[in-house]
Amino acid sequence: MTTIGVLGGGQLGRMLALAGLPLGLRCVFYDQAGEAPVDAFARRVIAPYDDEARLAELAESVDLITYEFENVPVATARFLAERRPVWPPPVALETAQDRFVEKSFFLRLGIPTPPFRAVDSRADLDAAVAAIGLPAVLKTRRMGYDGKGQMLLRVAGDLDDAWSRLGGAPLILEGFVPFNYEVSVLAARSTTGEVAIYPLIQNTHRAGLLRLSLAPAPDVPPDLAARAADYARRVLAALDYAGVLAIELFVAGGDLVANEMAPRVHNSGHWTIEGAETSQFENHLRAILGWPLGSTAAVGASAMVNLIGALPPAPAVLSVEGAHLHVYDKATRPGRKVGHVTLRASDMAMARLRLDRLRAATGIESAESAID
Amino acid sequence: MTTIGVLGGGQLGRMLALAGLPLGLRCVFYDQAGEAPVDAFARRVIAPYDDEARLAELAESVDLITYEFENVPVATARFLAERRPVWPPPVALETAQDRFVEKSFFLRLGIPTPPFRAVDSRADLDAAVAAIGLPAVLKTRRMGYDGKGQMLLRVAGDLDDAWSRLGGAPLILEGFVPFNYEVSVLAARSTTGEVAIYPLIQNTHRAGLLRLSLAPAPDVPPDLAARAADYARRVLAALDYAGVLAIELFVAGGDLVANEMAPRVHNSGHWTIEGAETSQFENHLRAILGWPLGSTAAVGASAMVNLIGALPPAPAVLSVEGAHLHVYDKATRPGRKVGHVTLRASDMAMARLRLDRLRAATGIESAESAID
Repeated sequence: MTTIGVLGGGQLGRMLALAGLPLGLRCVFYDQAGEAPVDAFARRVIAPYDDEARLAELAESVDLITYEFENVPVATARFLAERRPVWPPPVALETAQDRFVEKSFFLRLGIPTPPFRAVDSRADLDAAVAAIGLPAVLKTRRMGYDGKGQMLLRVAGDLDDAWSRLGGAPLILEGFVPFNYEVSVLAARSTTGEVAIYPLIQNTHRAGLLRLSLAPAPDVPPDLAARAADYARRVLAALDYAGVLAIELFVAGGDLVANEMAPRVHNSGHWTIEGAETSQFENHLRAILGWPLGSTAAVGASAMVNLIGALPPAPAVLSVEGAHLHVYDKATRPGRKVGHVTLRASDMAMARLRLDRLRAATGIESAESAID
Repeated sequence: MTTIGVLGGGQLGRMLALAGLPLGLRCVFYDQAGEAPVDAFARRVIAPYDDEARLAELAESVDLITYEFENVPVATARFLAERRPVWPPPVALETAQDRFVEKSFFLRLGIPTPPFRAVDSRADLDAAVAAIGLPAVLKTRRMGYDGKGQMLLRVAGDLDDAWSRLGGAPLILEGFVPFNYEVSVLAARSTTGEVAIYPLIQNTHRAGLLRLSLAPAPDVPPDLAARAADYARRVLAALDYAGVLAIELFVAGGDLVANEMAPRVHNSGHWTIEGAETSQFENHLRAILGWPLGSTAAVGASAMVNLIGALPPAPAVLSVEGAHLHVYDKATRPGRKVGHVTLRASDMAMARLRLDRLRAATGIESAESAID
């Protein structure tokens, strides 16, 4: 029995553990206090990320370690890496946790980004706006997720307000990309160096939260999908990565512009549970164990919709043909991801039709509108 | 949170629980002592099946009750049914537990069976052989599974030995069916009366154990598949059934002959986890909850092979494209089902090719040969 220590204990960890059980793999979680979607069926150590005694105990009790959210302190990952293999490598965490470091890394690899500048003072902000122009987005360099810690600057008059809200923390100003749509590329690399890349995914966000992923991305020309895959390969190789990695990109005109990366399984990859030959969760586990990767080919076409703030009744969801329900055992509250539904079909037109039926059967759009 | 009490705690229960978690359903098991494949991630009450206090406690703690093996005492099911809904209905257990009752039930529904006679004495055996002829199979009426409790009678000289081994328990003599192959029909019926039937499954047994299931059954003419589905509908309706039901049949010449039924999810349906739109495990849960059933359509073609007696290394299994590994967390010993692999492909020729590759990569045939 191989046991995997997982830092974090959210829905990504839940789905990792569920993917591991059929393979004979057990996950043990390590997380700060609070409810966790894994508690129904897995062991969770509840302790701070700087509790070296508990971390050392965790390392003793597992064969290797991974993480399911990217704000795990790098020091924690490095402490553990002295005791057990930690994948993805801590340097991936370090790179992804700071937007300035991350975008600089993309640039070094020849991956296009929006124009960006580090902003550490009010004067820096003026200089950055002068260089990049408006509109632009002011973001904290660290700890941002789901649209938190960022403000859109449309006109010069927005700067004071944004500075008063975000100033003090290290910031980055990024040029606003007038994108046609957002995509993500999801890739796995094994400790053996084997790489497998999923079909490109087309994403819709609202109020900073992912709402809908379509895969294979229906509106993306093949050359762009190939370019996104090439970018993923560069990142995987540069970091000597193992595990699943997601890169979010904007499609603007005929160009791809990298927004950010996540060194973990990713919300935009949930469709792979039913919609790909091998799920992102299984491939993450196979990758960090050095096992052969599974095929990333799509099985038909899928639309994945997040359930945000509230869960519709399961029978209403399941009345829709091709609907696959995943709930996370979390308390519902506005703006919180509490589950998802993947609609799988033979082609994207049918998947979209089923999505319309799901909306009609459950009213999920109106339930979400509270936070828009 | 809906909680389901499950009698038994084997691999079928394990896969039921894993199918329930994404739907927000929790399974609690009730089983006699011994290791159980659910212990890694679910609660199990360890108590005898006639412990009324513990059974009443179980009923109190769950919303409804099902079972994952068919030798649960009927009295246990009836005791629980006075307190909570029990599905499939206890009458299904009662019917399936006694081969004579079961075959009489098939006959009443117009479902062909081999010729059969109840045998309660040595004189009965002679009379039954005289009526049915040889070869024939002498079986215990109750508690047989995986080929245990039965003997093939080829010639008159075999009777004494068979009687000395099996006599004493209530027996049944069945005419031997010179079948071309074996199939099973897997069907679900919801408490609402909705019925869904999976594509017919073609099975290979050796030494009394299921080795291989192919689905959709490649060698069966469509009219036979339709007839098998019709038989399943008759059984479901006659028992006012809810849950998944399996009926095993022989294909002999152009005829279908019913062998036995199992009022539960079934080994020959494991391919549905990856190979059907909705797995038998999910549909069993949906059926007993009165939720809409999921599509039973096949996704490509699947070959499911049982791992018996030993587990090949996971990386060897997973080196085969389209291979999906399921291990049961059981101690390995000869003749014991410890896992299965489903090979899914776009068509049956490719699924069979992948099966050959699996055999080559893992040597599973030679590992099994010890028990043949």
